[in-house]
Amino acid sequence: MFKEDTVKIVSGGICAAKGFMANGVHCGIRKNKTKKDLSLIFSEKLCSAAAVYTTNLVKGAPLTVTKEHISNGYAQAVICNSGNANTCNANGIDIAENMSSLLAKELNINEKDVVVASTGVIGQPLDIEPIKNGIPELVKGLNSFGSSDAAEGIMTTDTVDKQVAVEFEIGGKVCKIGGIAKGSGMIHPNMATMLVFITTDVNIAPDMLQKALSSDIANTFNMVSVDGDTSTNDMVTVLANGMAENEMIASEGEGFDIFMKALNTVTVALCKKIAGDGEGATKLIECKVEGADTLENAKTVAKSVICSSLLKAAMFGADANWGRVLCAIGYSGACIDVNKVDVRFKSNKGEILVCQNGAGVEFSEEKAKEILLETEIDILIDLNSGNEMTTAWGCDLTYDYVKINGDYRT
Amino acid sequence: MFKEDTVKIVSGGICAAKGFMANGVHCGIRKNKTKKDLSLIFSEKLCSAAAVYTTNLVKGAPLTVTKEHISNGYAQAVICNSGNANTCNANGIDIAENMSSLLAKELNINEKDVVVASTGVIGQPLDIEPIKNGIPELVKGLNSFGSSDAAEGIMTTDTVDKQVAVEFEIGGKVCKIGGIAKGSGMIHPNMATMLVFITTDVNIAPDMLQKALSSDIANTFNMVSVDGDTSTNDMVTVLANGMAENEMIASEGEGFDIFMKALNTVTVALCKKIAGDGEGATKLIECKVEGADTLENAKTVAKSVICSSLLKAAMFGADANWGRVLCAIGYSGACIDVNKVDVRFKSNKGEILVCQNGAGVEFSEEKAKEILLETEIDILIDLNSGNEMTTAWGCDLTYDYVKINGDYRT
Repeated sequence: MFKEDTVKIVSGGICAAKGFMANGVHCGIRKNKTKKDLSLIFSEKLCSAAAVYTTNLVKGAPLTVTKEHISNGYAQAVICNSGNANTCNANGIDIAENMSSLLAKELNINEKDVVVASTGVIGQPLDIEPIKNGIPELVKGLNSFGSSDAAEGIMTTDTVDKQVAVEFEIGGKVCKIGGIAKGSGMIHPNMATMLVFITTDVNIAPDMLQKALSSDIANTFNMVSVDGDTSTNDMVTVLANGMAENEMIASEGEGFDIFMKALNTVTVALCKKIAGDGEGATKLIECKVEGADTLENAKTVAKSVICSSLLKAAMFGADANWGRVLCAIGYSGACIDVNKVDVRFKSNKGEILVCQNGAGVEFSEEKAKEILLETEIDILIDLNSGNEMTTAWGCDLTYDYVKINGDYRT
Repeated sequence: MFKEDTVKIVSGGICAAKGFMANGVHCGIRKNKTKKDLSLIFSEKLCSAAAVYTTNLVKGAPLTVTKEHISNGYAQAVICNSGNANTCNANGIDIAENMSSLLAKELNINEKDVVVASTGVIGQPLDIEPIKNGIPELVKGLNSFGSSDAAEGIMTTDTVDKQVAVEFEIGGKVCKIGGIAKGSGMIHPNMATMLVFITTDVNIAPDMLQKALSSDIANTFNMVSVDGDTSTNDMVTVLANGMAENEMIASEGEGFDIFMKALNTVTVALCKKIAGDGEGATKLIECKVEGADTLENAKTVAKSVICSSLLKAAMFGADANWGRVLCAIGYSGACIDVNKVDVRFKSNKGEILVCQNGAGVEFSEEKAKEILLETEIDILIDLNSGNEMTTAWGCDLTYDYVKINGDYRT
């Protein structure tokens, strides 16, 4: 098998893997000219492609087009705009197809090898003109250091861009995986999260790539919630161009395991970035549940806790109101024995037990406050009923969440 | 059958029905001496009693005690404190039993005929001393105009007390039903809402009373959400003392139908009061779904919309962001055809169509703003797929919700 240290974080984001270039420009979809609104990722070589999409019945037109485009398992470029979700528009499919074909023409590739995505306001027609006018500049500026520009171009209410890349070896070949993501509202993925684009030079068959992605997101992006709202445009895609020249991963085995581990390092890092930059958030909340009898119960409990508005508001106030944790466990729908539940709060400032066997224990409010004033908080729940464990990622609920969403369109 | 106008709103709250008295005092559970924290409802005669409780696995100790007390179908008094939920405490059951027996002794009734309830912080031991000391004054002050005092004594973060009463006739006898309720956070009932106490002088058998209540709450309290958090202490009780002297309602029929209609008038009024006074709320949001193929789909859609943090924040900002309505419909889990959905916003200022057949229509933003600046907003959704309809009640998400819950305990 592989050692813990075989996956290391490196720079370069989605351009870390061999053969990938990227760019991001302002083309005019957004009024603010300082904000990029159109991004591109391009691979020199055709890639194995995999994707997962939102489970929302209302689906953005770009998802329909992308799904059809990568149904053969291959793709070579990703185009994504921000500022408009191209969803609930009568001509949405046409616009998304148009984005693909205009880009394909400029890149001289097959239009069916384009992944297309959009994020922003729902239900406002997306004008193709600024995109059409922006594509030449977008393509011309493609470069191997363009990850940050591409990450910026997909941001909406995000306050920071979100990138990560890792390096590891498969069969003696150095491989890389990189990813960019956008949050930061309407984040409660149930299949994928808002938008995540992952690139890798690993040589892997399309079906194994899809298997790796589908298996990973169940424990990563589907365990993130900012506000309980599952977007219409959620999508995660992975492009793998094989330029690391490892022996093709065509079945399960050591190579696949290493790939899964490296992919998971990238996805978990992006989950934390998405949750920590949730709209208005001041804190990343990680809820770690252990001692569950089934993985499903562990997940149900963890998600219920990070979704509780009351708990999220308490975390904003650094208030050790553990009763709200118990309450959220109790209504989660998981079959658990509430009289066995232990709860701890933890951060860089230490760890404190606040509830044992479902009842409160005496603890120092001062110490609890000190712990909860940090910006990364762990809520540790032991159900004391088995060996299954999981982690879910969320954030606090703040005045700024309300401010951002009280007047998003204007 | 009965005419529309057979149920009319009257004053008196829980003391409107014959034979009921109430009171509320400050006994010292809450530090603020101007806030009442202990309430009592008492009937001259033994009552048929029915109740519904939270589905949260973590249940407040008072619920366990009440459930056992009214298992025979009868009760005569209700005692309820605010400031402490008596939940997740090792000695919770003892304290709740103690509250019952101290009250029963003072009233000279059987302790098994006492309904006991608590609301407030979870997981802090409830001291019996202030309750013990307060009971004599509480009982001494019982009177026929005490509904407001009792309604005040059960308030936590509520900004207004919540009372309603109605008058109607059964078989020529004048009957009344009255109720009090408290919100206003941790409100996402799944069986009942925080605390609702209903009194009536209707002569009705315990099993029919329970049937009426259980049937009613599915369309009333279970369709309310303030913050998605289902409390550990939710409870709705009805006491019916028979003093209206109508022929006993012992089976379904016209009398039962009239009772159901009158009960529903009371419960819907309380639902609107609870939702409209949700923590930090500035608006009552009513989501009316029609044209559903099944009642379940109608309910799933309506609840999903009023629970969406994004939609709630948009309502706070009077932003006609109907895409968030579509998004919440899409992820609700209901099986619907999103291409058939129409959405309208309505208030005292008029009505406006914003989405037809799942896509946006042109509308006046100015008019929409005028409509949404009102304090009672209807979101009208037509699924155009059948004849089932429902209503759900919620509120907007505001800075004050965050403020109230960021530091509730201190």
